[in-house]
Formats: sequence, structure tokens, C-alpha cells
Amino acid sequence: MRGCKSPDIDFLIIGAGIIGLSTAYHIKSMNPGSRVVVIEKNPGPGMGDTSRSAAMFRVFFSSKTNMILAKSSVEYFEHVEKNIGWDLGIKYLGYLFLVDSEELEDMKPALDEAERLGGSYRIIDRDSLKNQGFNVDVSTDPEASLMGLPDIEAGIYIPKAGTLDPDSLVRYYEHAFKSLGGEILYNTEVKRIVLGPKNPLGIPGEPFAWQDIEAKGVETSSGYIEARSIVVAAGAYTRELLEPIGIDPIVNPKKRQIFVIRANTKGLADLLNTKGYNAYNVIPFTILPRGVYIKPEIGEKSFWVGLSDNLGRPYGLEELKAEESFYRYSIHPVLTKYLPQFSQAYPDAMWAGYYDINPIDGQPVIFMVGNIEIVAGTSGSGIMKADAIGRIASALALGYDEVELYGGIRIRSDMFGLARRYIDPEKLIL
Amino acid sequence: MRGCKSPDIDFLIIGAGIIGLSTAYHIKSMNPGSRVVVIEKNPGPGMGDTSRSAAMFRVFFSSKTNMILAKSSVEYFEHVEKNIGWDLGIKYLGYLFLVDSEELEDMKPALDEAERLGGSYRIIDRDSLKNQGFNVDVSTDPEASLMGLPDIEAGIYIPKAGTLDPDSLVRYYEHAFKSLGGEILYNTEVKRIVLGPKNPLGIPGEPFAWQDIEAKGVETSSGYIEARSIVVAAGAYTRELLEPIGIDPIVNPKKRQIFVIRANTKGLADLLNTKGYNAYNVIPFTILPRGVYIKPEIGEKSFWVGLSDNLGRPYGLEELKAEESFYRYSIHPVLTKYLPQFSQAYPDAMWAGYYDINPIDGQPVIFMVGNIEIVAGTSGSGIMKADAIGRIASALALGYDEVELYGGIRIRSDMFGLARRYIDPEKLIL
Repeated sequence: MRGCKSPDIDFLIIGAGIIGLSTAYHIKSMNPGSRVVVIEKNPGPGMGDTSRSAAMFRVFFSSKTNMILAKSSVEYFEHVEKNIGWDLGIKYLGYLFLVDSEELEDMKPALDEAERLGGSYRIIDRDSLKNQGFNVDVSTDPEASLMGLPDIEAGIYIPKAGTLDPDSLVRYYEHAFKSLGGEILYNTEVKRIVLGPKNPLGIPGEPFAWQDIEAKGVETSSGYIEARSIVVAAGAYTRELLEPIGIDPIVNPKKRQIFVIRANTKGLADLLNTKGYNAYNVIPFTILPRGVYIKPEIGEKSFWVGLSDNLGRPYGLEELKAEESFYRYSIHPVLTKYLPQFSQAYPDAMWAGYYDINPIDGQPVIFMVGNIEIVAGTSGSGIMKADAIGRIASALALGYDEVELYGGIRIRSDMFGLARRYIDPEKLIL
Repeated sequence: MRGCKSPDIDFLIIGAGIIGLSTAYHIKSMNPGSRVVVIEKNPGPGMGDTSRSAAMFRVFFSSKTNMILAKSSVEYFEHVEKNIGWDLGIKYLGYLFLVDSEELEDMKPALDEAERLGGSYRIIDRDSLKNQGFNVDVSTDPEASLMGLPDIEAGIYIPKAGTLDPDSLVRYYEHAFKSLGGEILYNTEVKRIVLGPKNPLGIPGEPFAWQDIEAKGVETSSGYIEARSIVVAAGAYTRELLEPIGIDPIVNPKKRQIFVIRANTKGLADLLNTKGYNAYNVIPFTILPRGVYIKPEIGEKSFWVGLSDNLGRPYGLEELKAEESFYRYSIHPVLTKYLPQFSQAYPDAMWAGYYDINPIDGQPVIFMVGNIEIVAGTSGSGIMKADAIGRIASALALGYDEVELYGGIRIRSDMFGLARRYIDPEKLIL
């Protein structure tokens, strides 16, 4: 604590991932006179879990909340490409959910809801899927049957969905933020958030429990930095930063993995070049039963393959190493049953990252504790919702009750609080 | 994993604290034919945080949910004393909240709500408080003024509140549980919960992510124990047990401390023996501004003093050592301003324990993940709500949609879930 010296940083944002940069940009943009500084341990923007993401987006949810966040963000990204001329690598590949008959039945109300909210989809029949190389009748295979894998009844194709380049996106926000006079300190790791009394008395040992306590600044790898308020946009590291100062942020990291498979056989190349879905004439982002997904990587002529495992996959920070055994035993057996083209396919490359999960409802948390704002819990959909989340976090940090998202929708800025959340639960979960 | 051997334990309860024992007793009582086993690392019942509690109760809340839980539990405890003849040491000491004029104004709606729910209170005026030895006008003291301490405007006295003996309570549930044939393994520490496939295929490395996964048993300090379902009632250790298997229980432990002050001066003895509040002619459990509380210990002729600090007090497991400095710098300065009798009073004994906190709303979480039930988050009011929580957890574990609490109120058994909680927020928080 440096006594009552008045800090000249108004908002100190911890984390230059997509959420931190979007929030920093919107704070600076809504309040140009304030001094806004972002601190990031990596040497550049979005080098944490933002860069490890499959970077998919969809404008198709059964929850109005999700729909609003994703739609306004994706429309803003399109605006950035078209009107500002910053290439974000947006590609509408589409999403293809492959479902069994029971799932199809169960999903019907959620699909209707998503349609009512402006989303669109079409059903792909079994014959078309067969022609595209999917093995839809796995139950005739005794092994698949033993594994409990269901036959595919249909595909649900969502056209307004795709991928973008997360590096371009963070660089856009970094550029926009800096253009307004925002500052970023890279290679600077926050060790801890420092608390102090709101009204310091100059007594050693402050703050005491009878004082009003607030954040005073952060201790970093490059020394102490004072600030009037702090925005924690640290993704997977949110809990680690907040628990020591007595705040439980609800969110918790969970390891996720991506495996790269080259389309180096005729079967895999044919699958990659599936026509009829999108302008790129490639297979859409496809989700098989049991959650195994494949994403086409057009330039690299490869697939990214993954699976979000739940029970049995620990929460918490751990060694960020992809496990080939996870591909081999938990993904590959399912993959090959539905797509025998992958039978000899093993990863060429792989990596692991974290989802920053809100275990309650999978939607973000955006709340204040005194002069500390927490923006977290994007739960694997941070990129596709980044612009809306940044605007909401900015409005809340600046004390506005409401915020206008891109496209004109106005919402309350406290809707992603902890005790009171104004959200609709999502039924269409990957 | 022991393959497909069928376990003969139906319910394995982790933790013989008050919540684990109440739940175990009610499961066994609702389903006498089942085999119910409690595992506890300590050598006896309630030797964890149950024993470290101030063990207070009140039947006075602004939240209907809290009122139902506390009222039905306290009435059951009275029934145990009166009709079963098991002395639980229930003493109606009353609660005395001392509030400043602003707080009194702010609390009015919550007090009215609590009254509507059947609670009762009366206002104690400043003169009475002065006569009892309280310094109600602290703002004339420059130091108190510098500390920002407010004058006391009134006391709010709640008669239907008091304390009980947690050791007697856990021994009652232990006895009742064992009488029905329940089993308890003491000195047995659960190292981890073991998961496995619901339908084992006998493949090494199971369970894989494409399998339906469930709990199979627990590894303990005395070997592996198989069970059909597991109830985690581990209080502060809930998170530590569940994160490794991929469940985030929301709850998080926070250290709490109690300091024992002997009433060894005339001033302190007079304060202890304050008349007019209760049948014991002692000062009620009293909460000063800033949350410092004092509890009269009649037999020991002493006070238990404490303070639940929030921002700045870390979440998580840490060394469970009471800090005399916390008493000296965070409690004593407030205590002596309102009660100068304590000016030379320093602790004779002290200890630390954990609150198992639900950081969202301070109310319990009771939910299932497959065949694992989590009963946690009692947030410092586990003892006073223990019977109701045990009944609800039991009903949920047994698959009943509804449960009848003691006294006849019926509620849904899933009301304390994570995503959907059917609770009223509490406004009268200590």
C-alpha cells in the first residue's frame, strides 16, 4: 500500500485475451477521458486460451440471452470486416449436428424456440448423410452396439454459423483500443490483487475487518501498479486471482483439447470437400453423437477434432498438455464408427487449453465487488459473444444501468450477476 | 475399479458432521431396507467444523426458504429434547442486533417480512442499552469517529433464537442412525471418489468419454469401498473431493475464528449477567455494528467473540490456526468502543474452523450428478437447518419429488439445485 497517493489509472484490466480487450476497448470508447491500462503476462494479445480455441460461432440458440449476445457480437464482427475493412477471417461453414431419433425428438422444442428467436436450420436426411460418407447405421456393428452408439436419424444444419480468426479479432480490438489512447503492458504478470482501506488511516497492518475495503492495485512481475478500479478478465486464471482476496468468482477452468488430423487419404479429402453446405464446399463444423466434433481447416487441408468431456475431467488448473490417449480411446472409437474414413487417422498436432466454465448455467458472469469487476465464465463461447460481453462489462464498470449492444438492443448491465441473473437457460448445448 | 461386482452398500455418505449424520439418519429412516454407511476421517461424530461452530440458531429470517429450514429443524430439536428425552442443550438466549439509524431504516422491510413469516422481535431503546453497559454514542470519541463507527440507534431483540450443544446433536443423530442399523466407519479418510462406466466392458482404461460415467466407490485410508451411490456431505472439503472428478460444487470454504474471553472483571461479569432478555439472565447473543458478535457462555463464565470477515479473507483450505492479531486489530477496536468493559480483555483460548460457503446466496446446495449427491454450502447455518437439510437430501437421493419436513410442511426436493433454485434471498444476514 502506498498510502493515499491518488492513482492515475482509472481502469486496470487484467488479461489481454478477447474478453479483456473487448472490455478495455468499450470502456475507453464509452469514457474516452479515462486512463485505461491492460496488463497481460504473454508478449502479445490473445495468446492464452483465446488462441487455443476452435473459434467457432453460431447465431442459433434456444436461450434468448445467448442469442442476443452471439447475434450482436457476430453482426459487429461483420461490420468490422465490411465497413472498417479489418479482415477477421469470418467463414460461414455452418454447423451440422448429427442426432439419433430420441435426440431429434427431444431437441424439437429447443429448435422451435431458436427459430422463433430468428435462427434458422434445415434437416438433412439420412440418405444425404450416407452419400456424404457418414455411416448412419452403426447399430449393425456389434462393437458400436456394445459401445452404446446410436444410429443417426438426421442432421440439423445451421447455416448462420462458422469460424473466424481469433488472432485477427484480438488484434482488431487491440488496435481500436490503442487508437483511442488505451495502453497495454505485455510480458507483465499479475501476482496478486492488493486490497486496502477505502479511507486509509495510516496504521500499519491496514486494512482491518472494520474498514471499508477496496482494491488498490496489483503486484506484478514488474512491480506494483496502482489503479482506481480493476477489471478481472483473466479467463482460466480468474479463480486463482480472486480466491486469495476473498472473492469466489463461481467460474472454474476445465481442460479442453484439439487434435489435428491431415486429410491425407482420398476418403478424408472427399469428406473435407463435401459440397452443398457452404460457399467453401467443405464439410460444416460437425458434431457427432456423444459430442465428438470435427472442424474443417480449409487452408491446412485438415480437420480439427475434439470432445468436451465432463464428468471425470477435473476442474482446476493443471498441466496444459494434450493427451494422445484421449484422442485414441475417447474420441477415435466414436469417430471411426460414424466416419470410417478416420480409421487410420491419428493426430499430426494437438494442443490443450481451458474453458473458463460457469458450472451453473454456462453463461458469463459480469459483476462488481466494490471497485473490482469480474468478467468471466464464457464457458467455451467467449469469442462468439465477445463484443456484447465487452459492452456489458464496460457499462457495468462505468455505472450505467443499461447498455446498447451492436444492432441497437438495450439490456440491463447487471443481468449477468451472481445472485440475480436475468438469463434464459440454454437447451442447445454442444 | 472392481469390474461388475455388485456392491452391497446402497448409500455411502462422506462426512459424519451434522449434515452427513442428519442425511444418513433420514435416508435410513425413509428407506430402512437399504444399507447406509457413513465414512468419517475423525474418530467420532461432528469433530470437524460442526464442533468449531458457535452453534447458534434463530427462527427469524426474511427469506421464506430460510424460515422453513430453520423453523422445522429447531422444532424437531425441541421434539428430540421433550419427547425423546435427549438433551441437546437448547438455550433460548435470544439474538440482539445493535444497529445505527440508517441500518434500522434499511432493515425495516426485512423485519416486517420476517414477522409476516411468523418471526417476532422487539426494539430495545438506547436508554435500556446504556443501562446494560453499551456505549451507544461512540461518535463523540474521536478515535471511533476516525474508524467510521456509527452510534447505536436501537437494539433488535429476537427471542426465538439461541444456542445448542452441537456434540449432543450429532450424538443424537449418530445414535438414531445406528439404532436403525446404520453403520459408521470412523478414522477412515476418503482420498478420492472413483468413477467408472455404468455399463463396464472390461476394457483397460475405462471409463472413456463416450461411456455413461458414474461413481463406483471411494478410495479411503483403509482401502477401496464400493457403493451404489455416494452422498458428499464433507463441508469444507466438498470442493477438494469433487473438482478432481469434474464436478464444481459451487461452495467454497472460508476460515472463521472464535476467541474466548473470560468474564473476569466486574464490568465483564455484569455484562454477562445482564437481566431482562432470557431465562438465564445473561446477555443475548449480541451483534455489534461491523458484525462483531459476542456469545455468552454461561457455564464457563466467558464470552465467545467473533467476526465474519469477507473481502480480504481468502477462500479455500488453509492452515486452521486462529490469529490473535485478528482479534487484536480487527475485533478488539470495535468491541471496546461499544463495550469498554473489554478494553483489557484478550483471549484465553481461540480456534478456527471453516464456513462452507455458497457464495451466490448463502443457502445450501442439494443436487445430484448421476449417482452422486452433493449436500453442502450451509454457509454458517448448517446446525440450525440440519434436520430439514437432511430430510431434503434424503428425499432427493431416494428419488422423491417432494419431502415432508418436521411440522408437516411439504416442499420439492430439488429446490436447492444449482441452475434452478427455488429460494427467496435473505436480507437479514449476520
